[in-house]
Amino acid sequence: MKIAVDAMGGDFAPEQIVFGAVRAAKKYGCEIVLVGDEEKIREVLKRETGWEKLGITIHHTSQVIEMDEHPADAVRTKKDSSVVVATKLVKDGQCDAVLSAGSTGAAVTAAQLILKRIKGIGRPTIATPIPTTKGVTLMLDSGANVDSKPIHLVQSGMMGSIYAEYVFGIKNPRVGLLNIGEEETKGNEQARETYPLLKELHSINFCGNAEGRDIPKGNFDVVICDGFVGNVVLKFAEGLAKTIMKLIKEAIKDGGILAKLGALLLMPTLKKLGKRLDASEYGGAPLLGVNGVCIISHGSSNAKSICSAIGVANDYVNGKVLEHIKETLEQEEMLTKES
Amino acid sequence: MKIAVDAMGGDFAPEQIVFGAVRAAKKYGCEIVLVGDEEKIREVLKRETGWEKLGITIHHTSQVIEMDEHPADAVRTKKDSSVVVATKLVKDGQCDAVLSAGSTGAAVTAAQLILKRIKGIGRPTIATPIPTTKGVTLMLDSGANVDSKPIHLVQSGMMGSIYAEYVFGIKNPRVGLLNIGEEETKGNEQARETYPLLKELHSINFCGNAEGRDIPKGNFDVVICDGFVGNVVLKFAEGLAKTIMKLIKEAIKDGGILAKLGALLLMPTLKKLGKRLDASEYGGAPLLGVNGVCIISHGSSNAKSICSAIGVANDYVNGKVLEHIKETLEQEEMLTKES
Repeated sequence: MKIAVDAMGGDFAPEQIVFGAVRAAKKYGCEIVLVGDEEKIREVLKRETGWEKLGITIHHTSQVIEMDEHPADAVRTKKDSSVVVATKLVKDGQCDAVLSAGSTGAAVTAAQLILKRIKGIGRPTIATPIPTTKGVTLMLDSGANVDSKPIHLVQSGMMGSIYAEYVFGIKNPRVGLLNIGEEETKGNEQARETYPLLKELHSINFCGNAEGRDIPKGNFDVVICDGFVGNVVLKFAEGLAKTIMKLIKEAIKDGGILAKLGALLLMPTLKKLGKRLDASEYGGAPLLGVNGVCIISHGSSNAKSICSAIGVANDYVNGKVLEHIKETLEQEEMLTKES
Repeated sequence: MKIAVDAMGGDFAPEQIVFGAVRAAKKYGCEIVLVGDEEKIREVLKRETGWEKLGITIHHTSQVIEMDEHPADAVRTKKDSSVVVATKLVKDGQCDAVLSAGSTGAAVTAAQLILKRIKGIGRPTIATPIPTTKGVTLMLDSGANVDSKPIHLVQSGMMGSIYAEYVFGIKNPRVGLLNIGEEETKGNEQARETYPLLKELHSINFCGNAEGRDIPKGNFDVVICDGFVGNVVLKFAEGLAKTIMKLIKEAIKDGGILAKLGALLLMPTLKKLGKRLDASEYGGAPLLGVNGVCIISHGSSNAKSICSAIGVANDYVNGKVLEHIKETLEQEEMLTKES
C-alpha cells in the first residue's frame, strides 16, 4: 500500500500534512510519498525522529495551486504542481491512492482529467462523512457538481452504498434521498424524478426520502442530494458548530466564577462527547466515480485529520470499492441507461 | 388591531394556542378572534381568569384540517375549517392578520386562494427568522415553493429586505444570495441567473453570495434561497439542535457526580444563552407576497411562541409592510418585468 499525499495543500501545509503522514505511516504501516517542495518537507521531517525507517519518501515538485486560483486553468497550466503530480502517481500505478487538503476544485479537476471517470459514471461526487448520534452518515454529493440529473443522483446512491458497506462496514446501508417531505410526490423536479429510479434499483437498500433533520439523527447511512444542497448544508453545519462553541465560551466567560467552575467540572464529559462528534475522526471525503482512489481533506486539516484520512484511503483500497462499483455498473443495466 | 388565530392548528392545539393568545392580548393590548371549535376553546379559556375583559372573542368553526391531508384538496373542500375561516376574516376586512400553527401547506394554500397574491408577485415565500450570534437572519424561501425562477428569488429579496427593516428595525439590511461560493460565477443555474438581477436592483442592499456558514454567523440580515434548500437547511438545524441537546444530556448523565455538579453550576449561564438562541423569541414566519398579513407558526408552538408570533403580526401590520412592498413594486420596474 502506497499513498501519494499532496504535502503543499491545506491551511497548515506542509507542517500538519507531513506530521499526519508520519503518524499514519506508524499507525497503518503503509508507504507514503510526500509530494511537494522537497526542501520545505525536509524542514518539517527533521523534527520527527526515525521517519526514514517508515517508508516515507519525497517526490519533489516546483509548483503549488493556491486556493484562489481557477481550478481547471490551474490544473492545466501547473503541470508540476503537487496535486497534479500526486494524482499522476496514482494514474501511473506508482501509488494506490492520492490525498489532498488543498483546493477542492483543483483536486476534483485533477482527478477527473488524470484518473478519468469510471466508465458509465456521469459525474464524480464527493461523499462526506457526517458524525451523528448513531455513528456516521455519508452525504453525497457535497459539492463536486450542481444541477445534477436524476441518473447522477442514482449513481451516487449506488457508490455511496458500496462505500458505506466496504469502508465503514455497514451491512445493507439505508440509503435516503434528501427531500422536503416523506412522500414520493414531494420536492423539486430533480427529487421527484430521482425517487422512482431509486425505488427500482436492486443494488441498494433505498429507504425513501430523508428530511434535513434525519441527517444529525442518523436515520440513514447514506443520504443523496445535489451538490448545491449538500455544500450549503455542510457549510451551515460547520458554521453552526463554530458559532455554538464561541457562544458557550463567551457565556462561560461572562458567567462568573460558578459558571467557570461548572465548565471545568464538565470538561472531561464534553471532551468525550466532542471526540464522538469530531468529523476529523472520520478523515477525508472520497471523490467517488473517478477511476482511482482520491481522498479530499478539509482545508483546515491538522495532523490528526490527515492521519485519519490516510487510514480511510487504506480502507478504500483494501475494501476494493472501485471493483465493487464497476461490477455493480455491469450487473444493473438501469444504472447506466441514461448517462 | 385585530388578529385572527387558528385555535385548532398545531401539535398542542387548542390549549397552547389559546394560552398564547391570552398572553398576547395582555402584552400587546390587541383584539384576538380565536377561530375553531367553540366548546373546546371555552374549556381552555375557563382556566384563564379575566379573559373576557381582554378583547378576546370566539368564532366557531366545525372543521379542522389535519397534518396529513392534501393541502389544496382540504382547503377547497373544508370550507368551515379553522384555517380557512380565519384567513377569510382577513380577506373580509374583519381582522388585520391571520396566524396558524397547523399544516403549513394548508395555511399557505388558504392564503394564496383567499387573500391572493400581491399584484406583480410571482410566488409567495415563507420568511423564517433564524437566531444568530449577532441577532437574527431572515431566511426565505424556507419551503413555500421549489424550482423557483430567478425573478421569484429577486422578489423574495425585496420583500425580505422590507420585512427586516420595518418589522425587525434593521436599517438598510444586508441581503445575500445563498450559494456555494463567494464569486458571482459560482453555483447552480438558478443562483447564477439570479445574481446579476439582484446586483441591478436599487431597492435593496445586495451584498453578494452568502455561504451556508454565513447564516449562523449572522453575516447577512436577509438570505435568499430556493424553498427546497431553505427547507432542508431549517430542518437540518432543528434536528442538529435537538441532537446536540440530547447528547449533552446523555453525556452528563453518564459523566458521574462531578459532571452533574458542573452542569448544575453552568445551568444559569446556558439558560441565558438558550434564550438568546431561542427561535420562539422571534415568533412565527410571515408568508410574504400574499395580499394580507399571514403568519405561519411552527407546529410545535407553545403559548410563548404563539404570543411572540402575535407580536410579530402586530409589528407586521404596524410596519405597513404590505404598503411598502406594493410601492416598491411600482417604483422598480425590474421587479415585475419577467413575472
